[in-house]
Amino acid sequence: MTVSGDSNLTNGASSAATNGVNAASGAKRSWEELGAKKRSELQASIPKEWRIPENLMPPESQDDVTGWPETSGWFTEEELAITNSTIEELLSKLATGVLKSEDVTLAFCKRAAAAHQLTNCLSETFFDRAIAMARARDQYFAETGKPMGPLHGLPISLKDNINVQGVDSTVGMAVHVGDPAKADAALVEVLAEAGAVFYVKTNVPTAMMIAETVNNVFGRTLNPRNRQTTSGGSSGGESALIVMKGSPVGVGSDIGGSLRIPAACTGIFTLRPSGGRFPVRNCRSGMAGQEAVASVNGPLAPTLNGVKLYSKAVIDAQPWLRDPKCLPIPWREPELPSKLRIGVMWHDGMVQPTAPVARALKHTVARLKAAGHEIIEWDHADQEEGSLLLQRMFVADGGRTIKSQLEPTDEPLRIEMASYGVARELGTAEMWKLHLERTDFQNRYLDRWNKAGLDALLLPTVPFNTVKSGTFKHVAYTGVYNVLDYSAVSFPTGLNVDRSIDVPREDYAPLSSECKDIHETYDADLMHGLPISLQLVARRLEEEKVLAMTGRVLEALAA
Amino acid sequence: MTVSGDSNLTNGASSAATNGVNAASGAKRSWEELGAKKRSELQASIPKEWRIPENLMPPESQDDVTGWPETSGWFTEEELAITNSTIEELLSKLATGVLKSEDVTLAFCKRAAAAHQLTNCLSETFFDRAIAMARARDQYFAETGKPMGPLHGLPISLKDNINVQGVDSTVGMAVHVGDPAKADAALVEVLAEAGAVFYVKTNVPTAMMIAETVNNVFGRTLNPRNRQTTSGGSSGGESALIVMKGSPVGVGSDIGGSLRIPAACTGIFTLRPSGGRFPVRNCRSGMAGQEAVASVNGPLAPTLNGVKLYSKAVIDAQPWLRDPKCLPIPWREPELPSKLRIGVMWHDGMVQPTAPVARALKHTVARLKAAGHEIIEWDHADQEEGSLLLQRMFVADGGRTIKSQLEPTDEPLRIEMASYGVARELGTAEMWKLHLERTDFQNRYLDRWNKAGLDALLLPTVPFNTVKSGTFKHVAYTGVYNVLDYSAVSFPTGLNVDRSIDVPREDYAPLSSECKDIHETYDADLMHGLPISLQLVARRLEEEKVLAMTGRVLEALAA
Repeated sequence: MTVSGDSNLTNGASSAATNGVNAASGAKRSWEELGAKKRSELQASIPKEWRIPENLMPPESQDDVTGWPETSGWFTEEELAITNSTIEELLSKLATGVLKSEDVTLAFCKRAAAAHQLTNCLSETFFDRAIAMARARDQYFAETGKPMGPLHGLPISLKDNINVQGVDSTVGMAVHVGDPAKADAALVEVLAEAGAVFYVKTNVPTAMMIAETVNNVFGRTLNPRNRQTTSGGSSGGESALIVMKGSPVGVGSDIGGSLRIPAACTGIFTLRPSGGRFPVRNCRSGMAGQEAVASVNGPLAPTLNGVKLYSKAVIDAQPWLRDPKCLPIPWREPELPSKLRIGVMWHDGMVQPTAPVARALKHTVARLKAAGHEIIEWDHADQEEGSLLLQRMFVADGGRTIKSQLEPTDEPLRIEMASYGVARELGTAEMWKLHLERTDFQNRYLDRWNKAGLDALLLPTVPFNTVKSGTFKHVAYTGVYNVLDYSAVSFPTGLNVDRSIDVPREDYAPLSSECKDIHETYDADLMHGLPISLQLVARRLEEEKVLAMTGRVLEALAA
Repeated sequence: MTVSGDSNLTNGASSAATNGVNAASGAKRSWEELGAKKRSELQASIPKEWRIPENLMPPESQDDVTGWPETSGWFTEEELAITNSTIEELLSKLATGVLKSEDVTLAFCKRAAAAHQLTNCLSETFFDRAIAMARARDQYFAETGKPMGPLHGLPISLKDNINVQGVDSTVGMAVHVGDPAKADAALVEVLAEAGAVFYVKTNVPTAMMIAETVNNVFGRTLNPRNRQTTSGGSSGGESALIVMKGSPVGVGSDIGGSLRIPAACTGIFTLRPSGGRFPVRNCRSGMAGQEAVASVNGPLAPTLNGVKLYSKAVIDAQPWLRDPKCLPIPWREPELPSKLRIGVMWHDGMVQPTAPVARALKHTVARLKAAGHEIIEWDHADQEEGSLLLQRMFVADGGRTIKSQLEPTDEPLRIEMASYGVARELGTAEMWKLHLERTDFQNRYLDRWNKAGLDALLLPTVPFNTVKSGTFKHVAYTGVYNVLDYSAVSFPTGLNVDRSIDVPREDYAPLSSECKDIHETYDADLMHGLPISLQLVARRLEEEKVLAMTGRVLEALAA
């Protein structure tokens, strides 16, 4: 086996096949046939020289593969130096000609190829095009002596749904295999003009509506820090790739936590922007036309500064001139008060965080207090209402939009998406009432926020650090802020799970059956050493402020 | 008859009754009963001293009543001086203590009462509260020597749907009679804190979904410039009141042209902002929860500067901190290029403008060219598509939301709203597809706009100056820009209909049966002397720019 992704894929596909839908017969192309074709094309798209030799391949039983690029001897020192660099180092060297985009791109292509073979994180590769783009940037620099833009020569990975002309955006559904995008997404245009280079797209769950990354076409993406666990979803191909240092910065999307969950599960940074900051035009959605809760995209990166650099570059390009859904709000350097007033939500009233997350939250609060910030307790009173609203909005069409994409290939609805199978479609009049309930919720939350005088809210991103693949539960910690359309960052606290102290809490009393399940399956040994993340939330359209405040939190943690 | 509004009301109600729905029987309160109660309360709310004596009342046959306040002798010189002042004069004198808010308020209350008795423009009066508010402002000034805010002491009239605590917001439907608002709208809070005084709410059509102002509760509002014609809708109570100088600035709303149409029909200024500039929280909608096309509110005023002063005051109050639907975009003083590039759309491909509007458009274009601006022809290719999208979005719930507000009182659906009676409700999956069609339309329009390099688009607001009451047709000139959510101003050109030159065009060939109807019923004698307005449109969220550009157009017209 040269591409370990295939074995993961088979797991994903066979578990889906047990959902009870038979493969297509007759002239119809079945989901299995299309999936097999797609997987074989993906495998073939990786050049021989970037296929990991069998003798170097770590055993499937090896949980942590993040060290493999360093220890395998398969990368040159230059390749490692490039791919281990921070985004600032790369941009600085690319902008001054110290590094060539072609060399940087080749190094990331190779490392991304390795990451894929170890975690099944990619859905598309287009290395030839990447090298051509890189050469064009190098030529521009040679001719003008200047960088093309703020992202000059930098490879950026893209979530599968972000259209690149001539490349599929399957979003994990067989029906979209062999249906390449006719044009680049507006975001892709913006990034390209800023000098970026595109080389891979990353795996997602079916229709991007599962909190892990698994689908019937490409199978399951694994968490490189522990391959028994999930890298989260739906941007879990991105998070796995970035943790493998196969990408310096990647683009994901978020409609219920799809940026923050994978960032938290792998210990990297992300910004979930409010709707309208980054262009969404000409991206493929799993539920196209759904507008009650905005689907947004945003960066994932190993550092907070990586997230900020990307965000500023996109906004400085005035994306509102290209995408009518974008707002003409320029980049605003925030002026923070010296002392922040931060609400802390210890739990959301539905699921308590597991021991490591509870510890990280307590620790962070103590550090923030020590740094002079004001901490107030935030009541979880509204969280369940927000979470239920999100669930209702997701299935308001009775799952018809998703089912209509599965039926043409007889693709089964995955068990993780069972709610789409049983939902009743709302009529438009009912939908308007649901909008009103959502708006009322938004109004009341903002009033409470204002009354408390909060700058930010600190809370878990997910109620655990990560979980064993296939067992993810509870997206409410993130999803409520999608309903509210607030700006939010998920950040690693710098703490890792420690099995000696992160033992199941003695004082724990389950808040729900979900809570009980999550705590009963918490496995300190399996989680040992994995990073613990938290979420910082600001009001709607306060992206610059929430990024700057996260910087303050990191300072407090480092003090 | 002391209140001429009543006779108009009866017309409106009886024409509705012929729609074939019988009045309620039994314990249920019928729409007739509730309407009669409401009209009687409204009449009673006007103090005896502000009821026009029968001997001074102009005959119903008198078309133009705008001069009545000057000629009747019923107003004192001081009352006339105050109510004839510009908003700048009033604000300046109020802010320096030269005028007391109480005196200004009393003068506008009296003139609004007169306007109502001549045109049936009001739905609610709360004069006692207004005087109390005014006194509070005067006291504030006396104690601090400072104005309360940028609108210190200024009476502002409100469209019926804008909630004022303790006051009904019937939006012209009997079911809402006697259901007073529990709290002020966010906008009302903002305006009150800026120092404004509230004294009246103004009439609207049923559910605010007719382009004239007529409903089964209050009846019809008349155009004060010619009472045979309509003051437009749905903010036609506002436009009538302002033209009567019963209000220095008023607030209307717009989902398909409801600010611009009444402004154009009466020859005043308005800004239709994009969604998110002005707060909409806690206003009553006729189709609550409908979000596919944003319902916005904005100012109507006799001068462009009045519109600008109001807009800046609201935005400077940071309404986004109160209403989650508002965007954190501060007031931006625009820097205009010295030469504007303006597209002109001579007609929308569906209905040609009548002779006076065609003349005004031609004249304005000539003046703009003479002033050095660049004019390019704008193809009407997309207009019908946009117009149809709007119609489909309005009735997407099969009219259920509106019918559910009529049924409890057996109120008949007005003939003008027949489309709501026959529409088929879309399921949510179909609605999502309609969203996609709308987004695609928005994308293509923006691309065309960018390709043409436009600053603004100049076109008719409505295809006529106004029309005989009950004959309004064709809201597409405004409605397309609701679908696009573009910022737009309707402004009077300074030209008036001249029956000697605005004769039916010889070269005219109808573009549709609607076009034919409009041109066949154009009556130069009836329209003689009435103002002619046009519309200037800018991209989404370019409110400051479109106001500044309108200033340039006025300069060119005045040159």
